[in-house]
Amino acid sequence: MKFTICSSLYYNISSASTVLCSISCSETPYQKISNESLTVNRPVTRSDLSVGLDGNRFTKLQTDEPGDLQIQYSALVETSPRSVPANELSNRRDSTLDAVALPYLFPSRYAPADRMRAVAMDLFGNIQGDFNIAMAVEDWLFNHITYEAGSSDEQSWALDTLETRTGVCRDFAHLGIAFCRALTIPARYCTVYSYQLEPQDFHAVFEVYIGGSWYVIDGTRKAPLNGMIRIATGRDASDAAVATLFGGVKGQGIAVDVQLASNQNEAFNPVTREALMADGKAFFLS
Amino acid sequence: MKFTICSSLYYNISSASTVLCSISCSETPYQKISNESLTVNRPVTRSDLSVGLDGNRFTKLQTDEPGDLQIQYSALVETSPRSVPANELSNRRDSTLDAVALPYLFPSRYAPADRMRAVAMDLFGNIQGDFNIAMAVEDWLFNHITYEAGSSDEQSWALDTLETRTGVCRDFAHLGIAFCRALTIPARYCTVYSYQLEPQDFHAVFEVYIGGSWYVIDGTRKAPLNGMIRIATGRDASDAAVATLFGGVKGQGIAVDVQLASNQNEAFNPVTREALMADGKAFFLS
Amino acid sequence: MKFTICSSLYYNISSASTVLCSISCSETPYQKISNESLTVNRPVTRSDLSVGLDGNRFTKLQTDEPGDLQIQYSALVETSPRSVPANELSNRRDSTLDAVALPYLFPSRYAPADRMRAVAMDLFGNIQGDFNIAMAVEDWLFNHITYEAGSSDEQSWALDTLETRTGVCRDFAHLGIAFCRALTIPARYCTVYSYQLEPQDFHAVFEVYIGGSWYVIDGTRKAPLNGMIRIATGRDASDAAVATLFGGVKGQGIAVDVQLASNQNEAFNPVTREALMADGKAFFLS
Amino acid sequence: MKFTICSSLYYNISSASTVLCSISCSETPYQKISNESLTVNRPVTRSDLSVGLDGNRFTKLQTDEPGDLQIQYSALVETSPRSVPANELSNRRDSTLDAVALPYLFPSRYAPADRMRAVAMDLFGNIQGDFNIAMAVEDWLFNHITYEAGSSDEQSWALDTLETRTGVCRDFAHLGIAFCRALTIPARYCTVYSYQLEPQDFHAVFEVYIGGSWYVIDGTRKAPLNGMIRIATGRDASDAAVATLFGGVKGQGIAVDVQLASNQNEAFNPVTREALMADGKAFFLS
Repeated sequence: MKFTICSSLYYNISSASTVLCSISCSETPYQKISNESLTVNRPVTRSDLSVGLDGNRFTKLQTDEPGDLQIQYSALVETSPRSVPANELSNRRDSTLDAVALPYLFPSRYAPADRMRAVAMDLFGNIQGDFNIAMAVEDWLFNHITYEAGSSDEQSWALDTLETRTGVCRDFAHLGIAFCRALTIPARYCTVYSYQLEPQDFHAVFEVYIGGSWYVIDGTRKAPLNGMIRIATGRDASDAAVATLFGGVKGQGIAVDVQLASNQNEAFNPVTREALMADGKAFFLS
Repeated sequence: MKFTICSSLYYNISSASTVLCSISCSETPYQKISNESLTVNRPVTRSDLSVGLDGNRFTKLQTDEPGDLQIQYSALVETSPRSVPANELSNRRDSTLDAVALPYLFPSRYAPADRMRAVAMDLFGNIQGDFNIAMAVEDWLFNHITYEAGSSDEQSWALDTLETRTGVCRDFAHLGIAFCRALTIPARYCTVYSYQLEPQDFHAVFEVYIGGSWYVIDGTRKAPLNGMIRIATGRDASDAAVATLFGGVKGQGIAVDVQLASNQNEAFNPVTREALMADGKAFFLS
Repeated sequence: MKFTICSSLYYNISSASTVLCSISCSETPYQKISNESLTVNRPVTRSDLSVGLDGNRFTKLQTDEPGDLQIQYSALVETSPRSVPANELSNRRDSTLDAVALPYLFPSRYAPADRMRAVAMDLFGNIQGDFNIAMAVEDWLFNHITYEAGSSDEQSWALDTLETRTGVCRDFAHLGIAFCRALTIPARYCTVYSYQLEPQDFHAVFEVYIGGSWYVIDGTRKAPLNGMIRIATGRDASDAAVATLFGGVKGQGIAVDVQLASNQNEAFNPVTREALMADGKAFFLS
Repeated sequence: MKFTICSSLYYNISSASTVLCSISCSETPYQKISNESLTVNRPVTRSDLSVGLDGNRFTKLQTDEPGDLQIQYSALVETSPRSVPANELSNRRDSTLDAVALPYLFPSRYAPADRMRAVAMDLFGNIQGDFNIAMAVEDWLFNHITYEAGSSDEQSWALDTLETRTGVCRDFAHLGIAFCRALTIPARYCTVYSYQLEPQDFHAVFEVYIGGSWYVIDGTRKAPLNGMIRIATGRDASDAAVATLFGGVKGQGIAVDVQLASNQNEAFNPVTREALMADGKAFFLS
């Protein structure tokens, strides 16, 4: 599928400031970018950085001049999400500890897996196979956590979500990651643009590493699994924040718009987790 | 200086187990390794991994067979720690946000800098220059935290150390890292072998990124700054644990022995932080 | 001084509900009530309770009928706050552990003194005399905690205030209580009506037990110490909440109005902590 | 039944110290004390206090003289525990909010019910009737929390037990109390001597207030319900600690011995919760 993406970040600058943002799509075997631009509404000092384990694309903007700052990103992205039969994965119990996945097994700021072993074992300890555990985690998130806009803040971590049973997409992802790592399944955080997400916004999901590949999971079930366009991955939101602010700058809002590219003939058939399962499939995105 | 290093990890295996250890020294511009070996007292499946942002050297050992497992590491390492004049750094206020240092500005599991901004500002907010802030953090750690063996565990984080005012080297490092990041100074965790550390053990310190280089800080002041041999670095102890255990394996103890190489003519002059400062120097290791 | 007090609580009832409120002034040797009424804008089942160690006055209102509920309290209260010379208290180190004060030495929900010993010792451990410690605590609160409306919620406890250095009157009181108890000074929470508090609202302060008497402390310094009219006391806000809600009821707001009684000849001279100290006095209210 | 109780507390005094202990049995309608003594192995300043809402019996011992201190308590106590038919309670949904029970509905230091509402609702929200909820809480504690000596410390609270799924009697009680209060059932902490507890020690249970009476619950199921002799009650362990120490004093151990009085003809039939339920009974002790 081809999607057109347009997103904007709005700030007010009062004194010397740096905005570090991560809103550009990533290039992957399943995702090709064309016609991309990131523009700013006035002169700033700009540099593009490749950051961290996954080479996330950050843009750093610096300015001393007070006033409004608007960052606008647009791209045309073609995605080819692939699914694999669930039964190829379902009995797999991975113990390879691949070097590439190891950092995603360790506890992180918002996914403190080391403090969730007892709860994870109590809830999921009797389930066999990494894929089945991951699916049970997704079920649990969807059934026990209430999605509520504004119910958490940027310091909320998985223990808060476990306590309050309430959160936004970021919190569903962090709790899922923490459960999986606690059960020795590498898991990472992923920010995405998401087609048909209501209301339109940046979205966060997580990925589990099974049999050498990463599989996407969205415990909120708020958007089609085949409409996601990847921005960045990391251990948790600390690695993949949409924007981090330094100095005299304040956020004024964001806007996101994801559309099907107008010139494509294909119709979009939204794929839900239930449909995938009914079809014997596990979803695949990397 | 040349040091001979010998360290051992002892385990008891009751069922299928994986031991992931990080006890091999790292190769850096200031540290050259020779005569290195890592041996195990019985047949295991072994692989050597390069993990994470800093290419930490991990060894993965897998075995199904019950019994004792002993891992022994030895190496001859030549270090050439360098110091720079403090006044070259002291007024520097860094805002470059280099890509290589950015991940070390973000909060991590044991160094939740995002929750320490108010305290860090209250304690250090009126100090000018990144180097001066870092030195003030070191002073504060030494003067306000009591070193006490056994006072913390592997889940302890910087907020615990701030609360109890007690910890071990790992805790001093985490609290120092969290303070520095909260004040926008990139900081990372570092495990080292340490000459003249009493009692002999693995040691943990932290490094701050100022003006494009990493400088080592040890708030415990328990070992000479010029007797450290680097093992691994990371965001915090989650990245650089000496050993992580999976399956039916239990730790039985460790042994560390760091000596001056017998064939060298040089005498060892222990360098303390006070001596460095008196000499107008900031210590340098990377 | 004589004060007229009028306060109102506004609720919306959607289904069977109980409102438990504590807005009636307490009768003490230094506070006499007359012309008191607590009225409700429609029929409810009502009972007046004397609750807890200090016989706090609670009113319990029950209704099944949906709609608006308004509770209005008014009273004329004459207070005679007394001060004592600070030097009578300043060197006192109390170790009597009176039965009446003991429960206020134990940790409570929002004032977990058992977790604040190390910080309290670090900040105040070198000060001699219970009164001097209490005054140093007041100073510290005023100088290190920023008053900010809306910065905390009803689950915030003293550790949060210590972390964020921000709070409202309730948080100043909880942190002060926790510090004092950690240093073996009994301390309790107190809700008051407060003349010249801006904006008009319920107010919270704390009291320390020295030499057999309770002394009021207000780390916010937002209101005159001689304009407070006591409502309730307790270990912390859990004992003395203005209102606790059960069932289908939602708060819609409050209103508080404290005035000097119009028929009195005396002028009101606001007494601040600085003025008291300058005058060699410690304030007294119980 | 008649029990002879003997308990000892051992301390070492290095400088001026106060020991506040609560090891004397309480007099209740269901518990009569005779032949009671509390003796100390050397001269101290002693006073007996009645503390808090429930008039707990505390003994305060003060001494300046270094050396060993031994406190010995002995008593002969006759208990007459009563059970009531469970069906008298099982559908009861209490909303009376009696003044005497209200303080036990509020959150406390180790039972922060205000932070456990979501979890309590998730686990027990569909159960009807206060008695049935309380029984489900007891079941959950027994089935999901592992009793492990030494697994917690005196700062552990219900959120820790929920996280680690491990604790001692104190922790089972605190978690049970927090769940019940979160579901609007008043609950209080209770220290007891306990016949046939293995190994012999002080024991902690909790009580729920249903239909105007307090019912004892022991989620550990480690001791017969009809072999408990009450010492003290309170909101949580902060009110009813066996001993609280001030000054230069260190604990050296305790000893507890509970026996059936030798001169009684009755045989002791241990009553378990399962047996009570099978018999259609709810146990009663106050």
